[in-house]
Amino acid sequence: MSAKEIPYKIYLEESEMPKDWYNVRAHMKNKPAPLLNPGTHKPMTFEELQPVFCDELVKQELDDTTAYIPIPEEIRNFYKMYRPSPLVRAYCLEEKLQTPAKIYYKFEGNNTSGSHKLNSAIAQAYYARKQGLKGVTTETGAGQWGTALSMACAYLGLDCRVYMVKVSYEQKPFRREVMRTYGASVTPSPSETTQVGRKILERHPGTTGSLGCAISEAVEAATSREGYRYVLGSVLNQVLLHQSVIGLEAKTAMDKYDIKPDIIIGCAGGGSNLGGLISPFMGEKLRGEQDYHFIAVEPASCPSLTRGRFAYDFCDTGMVCPLAKMYTLGSGFIPSANHAGGLRYHGMSPVLSQLYDDGLMEARTVEQTAVFEAAQQFARVEGILPAPESSHAIRVAIDEAMKCKETGEEKTILFGLTGTGYFDMVAYEKYNNGEMADYIPTDAELQAGFDGLPVVE
Amino acid sequence: MSAKEIPYKIYLEESEMPKDWYNVRAHMKNKPAPLLNPGTHKPMTFEELQPVFCDELVKQELDDTTAYIPIPEEIRNFYKMYRPSPLVRAYCLEEKLQTPAKIYYKFEGNNTSGSHKLNSAIAQAYYARKQGLKGVTTETGAGQWGTALSMACAYLGLDCRVYMVKVSYEQKPFRREVMRTYGASVTPSPSETTQVGRKILERHPGTTGSLGCAISEAVEAATSREGYRYVLGSVLNQVLLHQSVIGLEAKTAMDKYDIKPDIIIGCAGGGSNLGGLISPFMGEKLRGEQDYHFIAVEPASCPSLTRGRFAYDFCDTGMVCPLAKMYTLGSGFIPSANHAGGLRYHGMSPVLSQLYDDGLMEARTVEQTAVFEAAQQFARVEGILPAPESSHAIRVAIDEAMKCKETGEEKTILFGLTGTGYFDMVAYEKYNNGEMADYIPTDAELQAGFDGLPVVE
Repeated sequence: MSAKEIPYKIYLEESEMPKDWYNVRAHMKNKPAPLLNPGTHKPMTFEELQPVFCDELVKQELDDTTAYIPIPEEIRNFYKMYRPSPLVRAYCLEEKLQTPAKIYYKFEGNNTSGSHKLNSAIAQAYYARKQGLKGVTTETGAGQWGTALSMACAYLGLDCRVYMVKVSYEQKPFRREVMRTYGASVTPSPSETTQVGRKILERHPGTTGSLGCAISEAVEAATSREGYRYVLGSVLNQVLLHQSVIGLEAKTAMDKYDIKPDIIIGCAGGGSNLGGLISPFMGEKLRGEQDYHFIAVEPASCPSLTRGRFAYDFCDTGMVCPLAKMYTLGSGFIPSANHAGGLRYHGMSPVLSQLYDDGLMEARTVEQTAVFEAAQQFARVEGILPAPESSHAIRVAIDEAMKCKETGEEKTILFGLTGTGYFDMVAYEKYNNGEMADYIPTDAELQAGFDGLPVVE
Repeated sequence: MSAKEIPYKIYLEESEMPKDWYNVRAHMKNKPAPLLNPGTHKPMTFEELQPVFCDELVKQELDDTTAYIPIPEEIRNFYKMYRPSPLVRAYCLEEKLQTPAKIYYKFEGNNTSGSHKLNSAIAQAYYARKQGLKGVTTETGAGQWGTALSMACAYLGLDCRVYMVKVSYEQKPFRREVMRTYGASVTPSPSETTQVGRKILERHPGTTGSLGCAISEAVEAATSREGYRYVLGSVLNQVLLHQSVIGLEAKTAMDKYDIKPDIIIGCAGGGSNLGGLISPFMGEKLRGEQDYHFIAVEPASCPSLTRGRFAYDFCDTGMVCPLAKMYTLGSGFIPSANHAGGLRYHGMSPVLSQLYDDGLMEARTVEQTAVFEAAQQFARVEGILPAPESSHAIRVAIDEAMKCKETGEEKTILFGLTGTGYFDMVAYEKYNNGEMADYIPTDAELQAGFDGLPVVE
């Protein structure tokens, strides 16, 4: 540790912001397995992916050798509107916990989309625009991704069509209105507007939808319409690439003050935040330059890394998407209705799945009442009301800091604070009223999900 | 203008943050009129104010000669958690408008309270704590102030009791839950918990409350309970003093890049933001060092500066508070039910009222559909979804920028972006659905308010 005084918040100068994204795949010995064509089970080619994603994004998706990919100037200019995001020293939390640990968090909630999702949304929208497309389609669950994409599309003058999981559409009308304010059209999914939506409604009338369904609808909406492509806010390699801006900024800020994190913690749903935060640090570990202890935190109610299978699986319910090799609970898995917030996707990013399988990081589950307890404690001392997703990381950061208190170790902890919880007050209300419950799926319930896994030779 | 390249956001170093608040009254030739005892109509003394406010805050309220008042170190440390706030160059808005004007905004929404209110909340809570009090009481309407105060009290371990205007309590359950998450108790006002509340309910059964009622209840709750004091988020001299941190930071940031604003614009309800933003600039104008064009923007539905009387009036409905000389619509005035957002207080800060009466600033009204139009336009290009209150300033900033487009003038415009609109999506939904209406009170309606003004010799 340096003797330099560490400010509450470390902001980088615009000139210190990254000019390239970092592609961690380039330094992985075991590359993530390729996407497979769901019919032939052969690796998806550029040409096969082209009708779904923009050309440039397909290239990024398939590129596992180029370590640094330049961030186009237009995207860097947009980043400047809300980045660099602050790296905050949690002095107040440390004092509250009376821990010798030094806690830092990279705060990605200081833009109106309210989360880190904007980092990839603007990139994907930019490439769509550059290719001369009219618009993009996507799905959203808790709403962070849809909000971010709407904002990015508004900025670039692209049409944006969001399929929003029906239960969220109804329970989160304000999220919906934010997207509409940014000019997006928002359709509750499953809907009558797509073949796959109609099929799902026929089979499951009255269903409140799932991310898997909404993905199927959004993909169909893109591929059946001239000038549209599909975009996704997590899981994909390209998303982790764009999100590496989080880790790159964090690393530059820490290097500036000679701070070396011992433990790096991120919440993990599809992996967009965790992958982005850890990428440059993981790169050092892969190249043998430095060691870090990485911890992925997932909800006990949706435990893809800790209790899932590492296997090829469908990315969507309608089974129209390519197969991805990932830790998965099966494409039919839907977390219990009492699960609040995001982190509800059945699978995990293939990059993170491979890194986890190679023993390069730890994964841990936490239950949601413990998560909201940490969220409330954090809010009261740090003055930021965190998103439920982010609070998974807070929970484990506090747990690790309390271990340091027992052992007297002065570990440096870095975690990703991905966003704010302004749109999650229904969940906070439940917690405030003592009405929040935990849920851990039984082995039998998980088995039902595994039974639906495709057989891939 | 300097040749230095202006970044999107100008952040100050922690070392550049103000160490003193600036008290604009010290440089006013015509001082704001003193608060009067509602019974004797004599100026309120320190001893008379002591049961209502903390000692140190009474001193600040009465001090119209000390120009710089040191910010205690503990408050400066809290400020560091979310300040300095960014001064943003609205490059994207300028481009969208194709205006030669240079537009800057000081963004105060990047803390979880979501607005500038925290600047005074932490100061008032700090002095209460220092005096060894148990807690504070207050009122809140749209909820920004209650949220900020709850956060400040949570941080300092003070009890916080909020009387929330009943209609907001019911229509903004999420605001309520944020306050509860920070540990505050929230009571819908008028309530049965106070004498004045019971009296109002008896006279007006079924009333949905007003700021004036909630103030009366909060004052009674403080003065009838051992170890409590009342705190207020606007109007008072002390609040403008604390909020001067906004203007001081803005001025330091602009000076750093040799930028001189021609026009400075702020929304005005009770005056907390406008007063804070303009204070140091107004000081220069009062001392004859520099000239600026100040514009106060208020809703057409609550036009205290533009259509009110400059007279002594009650600050609350229950008439238990001191009288203040201010531009007022009468303490019985309640804006039309279709009015969205805050800026609904019947009077204006005595400091700003005096400055306005002395011809030192302009005031302008805007109608709410035009305000939301500006809000949406701003959100789409600048990536921040603004609070309805702040959007009043955006409206006039855009209007002024468009005038520059006509004349070709390269004016520099600075406006205060006081907060985010996350909790105002019901109003945005109305606007998005084309269901928002405007309302301008008739002269007869205003006359009813003026008829209730007290007679003060």
